[in-house]
Amino acid sequence: MSTAAFGTGRILKLVALLVLFFGLWFTPVPEGLTRESWHLFAIFASAIFSVVLNIFPLFTSSLVAVALVVLTATLTPAKAYSAFANNIVLLVVTAFLVSQSVVKSGLGKRISLLVVSVFGKSTLGLAYSIFITDTLIAPGFPSNTARGGVLFPIILALANNGGSTPDDDKTRRFGGYLMFCGMASLAITSALWFTATSGNPVGASLAAEQGLKIDFGSWLLASSVPCLVVIALLPVLLYRLYPPGITATPEAPARAREELRMMGPMSGHEWITAITFIIMITGWVLAAPYNLNGTAIAIAGLATLMISGVLTLDDMSQQGGTLVTFIWLAILFGMSGQLNEMGFMGYVGERLAVGLEGLAWPVAYVALLTAYVFLHFGFVSQNAQVLALLGVFLDVGVKSGVPVALMAYALLFASSYFSVITPQGGSQNIIFVASGYLKQGELYRLGMLTTIFCLLVFLVIGTPWILWVG
Amino acid sequence: MSTAAFGTGRILKLVALLVLFFGLWFTPVPEGLTRESWHLFAIFASAIFSVVLNIFPLFTSSLVAVALVVLTATLTPAKAYSAFANNIVLLVVTAFLVSQSVVKSGLGKRISLLVVSVFGKSTLGLAYSIFITDTLIAPGFPSNTARGGVLFPIILALANNGGSTPDDDKTRRFGGYLMFCGMASLAITSALWFTATSGNPVGASLAAEQGLKIDFGSWLLASSVPCLVVIALLPVLLYRLYPPGITATPEAPARAREELRMMGPMSGHEWITAITFIIMITGWVLAAPYNLNGTAIAIAGLATLMISGVLTLDDMSQQGGTLVTFIWLAILFGMSGQLNEMGFMGYVGERLAVGLEGLAWPVAYVALLTAYVFLHFGFVSQNAQVLALLGVFLDVGVKSGVPVALMAYALLFASSYFSVITPQGGSQNIIFVASGYLKQGELYRLGMLTTIFCLLVFLVIGTPWILWVG
Repeated sequence: MSTAAFGTGRILKLVALLVLFFGLWFTPVPEGLTRESWHLFAIFASAIFSVVLNIFPLFTSSLVAVALVVLTATLTPAKAYSAFANNIVLLVVTAFLVSQSVVKSGLGKRISLLVVSVFGKSTLGLAYSIFITDTLIAPGFPSNTARGGVLFPIILALANNGGSTPDDDKTRRFGGYLMFCGMASLAITSALWFTATSGNPVGASLAAEQGLKIDFGSWLLASSVPCLVVIALLPVLLYRLYPPGITATPEAPARAREELRMMGPMSGHEWITAITFIIMITGWVLAAPYNLNGTAIAIAGLATLMISGVLTLDDMSQQGGTLVTFIWLAILFGMSGQLNEMGFMGYVGERLAVGLEGLAWPVAYVALLTAYVFLHFGFVSQNAQVLALLGVFLDVGVKSGVPVALMAYALLFASSYFSVITPQGGSQNIIFVASGYLKQGELYRLGMLTTIFCLLVFLVIGTPWILWVG
Repeated sequence: MSTAAFGTGRILKLVALLVLFFGLWFTPVPEGLTRESWHLFAIFASAIFSVVLNIFPLFTSSLVAVALVVLTATLTPAKAYSAFANNIVLLVVTAFLVSQSVVKSGLGKRISLLVVSVFGKSTLGLAYSIFITDTLIAPGFPSNTARGGVLFPIILALANNGGSTPDDDKTRRFGGYLMFCGMASLAITSALWFTATSGNPVGASLAAEQGLKIDFGSWLLASSVPCLVVIALLPVLLYRLYPPGITATPEAPARAREELRMMGPMSGHEWITAITFIIMITGWVLAAPYNLNGTAIAIAGLATLMISGVLTLDDMSQQGGTLVTFIWLAILFGMSGQLNEMGFMGYVGERLAVGLEGLAWPVAYVALLTAYVFLHFGFVSQNAQVLALLGVFLDVGVKSGVPVALMAYALLFASSYFSVITPQGGSQNIIFVASGYLKQGELYRLGMLTTIFCLLVFLVIGTPWILWVG
């Protein structure tokens, strides 16, 4: 019953939410900010708070937030709804729809059986195979959202074949572990390669303003050691933090080989799916040099799968969960973007800079990097934070005496690995989050711990390494 | 099997589609148009053609069209995707999600039982009750999309209670008849009242440029006779054109009263739904004078229903059909809007004007009005056509000697009643179309016949009436 959801604990949380919201709303607007940007922050922060405390799901919180934002005239309707037409948001939605074909055609099962036949003796082996695959394909993918669209259906098939479903609490964690490995892998491989996400060149161009020249090779040199340490340790760490339930499966490789034999040769639909994905991937790799739109490539792929009958309208009409994702993602993405455009994020960065004046540079360095990483809690888009804060933080760091290369690389790499700090912290997460294998609380917990782990590796191992090679 | 769908007839149609597309694409660009606007027309026309000939469903055709438009650089991605953030498109999507509560809570069943207990002796009685209800509430609703959001769940409940489901070919037509009555009613009641749709004041402001002053009273005087004739005859005409299968139900009112007794008093969820709708309707009525955003009001209503537990995330995750609607509507809406912005529609209007020069005014009047109505075949938005063509057509008519009031009112009323000419001809149609009760072919046939009927009534009865009172 819905009334049962309104127990004492819930009422206390609701009161806390209302206190937070009205407290922020009626706080005098800090100097240097507009009333609208402050009110937008009050609404956005309350929405995130209500999700973190599990008062309302993301969908409901987003609906309340956008209705408030528009009806209080904090944003114009056009600005509040703008992200529904955002390229990245639409790519997430399309990738989700397209990925169904990999499962439905049987291709995902076949690939996952191949993976299991090689790495399948243990769950940990599967996790490493995800990280390794992603590491190898990442330099060719300037969009990690598109890369997620390739990894996700294979991970989903791995989970399904392992007997794991989102609704079954006994088997759920096996799929959940693999899904989180997918998200974490995208986060760290994006830091490893200069060309693995669109934010890297954007950030590099900001660093160039401080006189630091970055290219594919110098980036890889600086990123290699800390990133490879994370890639080597993270699967094991997550395995400890979130035991997947199913661990050793010594007979799995043989069984997978037997199942592959029983599947026989690839079906027509498998071929169509495989060829469509190969063409889409080629298109995504060529997107940057030839100025092609990645979302349109994904839409063309979806159209191909619909026309060839691999996917049908019936399959689409079961994608209500994708609609839910679309709606909250577009709302939060839009609000975060507007917070940035209205100068709120820049204002926070500047306040911070003032507070750091006069500190020794190593202290300033650690404080700036740590603040930069944890501020991502409030961002839905990585690129938005890069554009809003990277320049300010780099500037403050250099003025405090931090070597330019160290400060720049530390912030640039953080801009990739902090994506898992919240489920909505990177658009490439969304497809994994929406699979339902992980609960919101688990996502926040694992995301926070993974982010802290990465931050520590980059501080302790990355700092001396970058100082040496930078 | 999907291969079965590729019979000889289908291959011929596909060839025709390709001939049309490449024929248009490689036709030399007419003088006065840009290459991009001509190519956009080629893609848009081919998409509509493939839907009308049932080669691909709307969803697939739209995907192909938008992928082509972006990958050929006919439109920028931002412009091609812009309508995903359009206020009206989002209102349609939200209205669809909100309407589920009326069915789920039982409120729709209760209201429909009340309607049946009074009018339910015959299907025709139900149809008249839809038209009459809509006629009475229309002057208070400046958005006919919002009005559709109120009518739709009640009609859906009427269909369900009559034992009609979209998937059952035996009972489908009963619901289909009522759904089409809903669409047709919105079309004609929007013409009746000056304040029944946002396009009316827009069109009136264009007529003011020709010196014609229009207010609530003068509009109603001119519209009353032809509109009431249509309202009186259309339910019977549609009943003949599309026999609903179930006709006389003499015992239905008594059974409805019995069922109402069995339902007992209104449940908590029914009360919440009723109060939410009353507040939403109040908000929609006040939207224009107080400058409130109708979409945000609908989103607030959806949030209320989610928080109170009337609707759940599970309900939302079954709304994949709504996602399909969202996607094709946004794509076509966007393309139609861009065709207009790029001057294509205005160009067509001007060509037409040149062709009419030197004709007697009654001939020019009939030709202009007829062309104006049938050109709506290419528009997804009524307001877009009003903005693009009403001014041009009025100007041409007046220059050809047609009395200003006659030409203006004829075009203004047509701008409402032509909305049913295609399923996508008015955003308020979409919610009824997506219910699945009517097949695409039926929608085009009934829409065309209804539009022709309205045009004839307005020509034969409306013309002398407007000349007399205008």
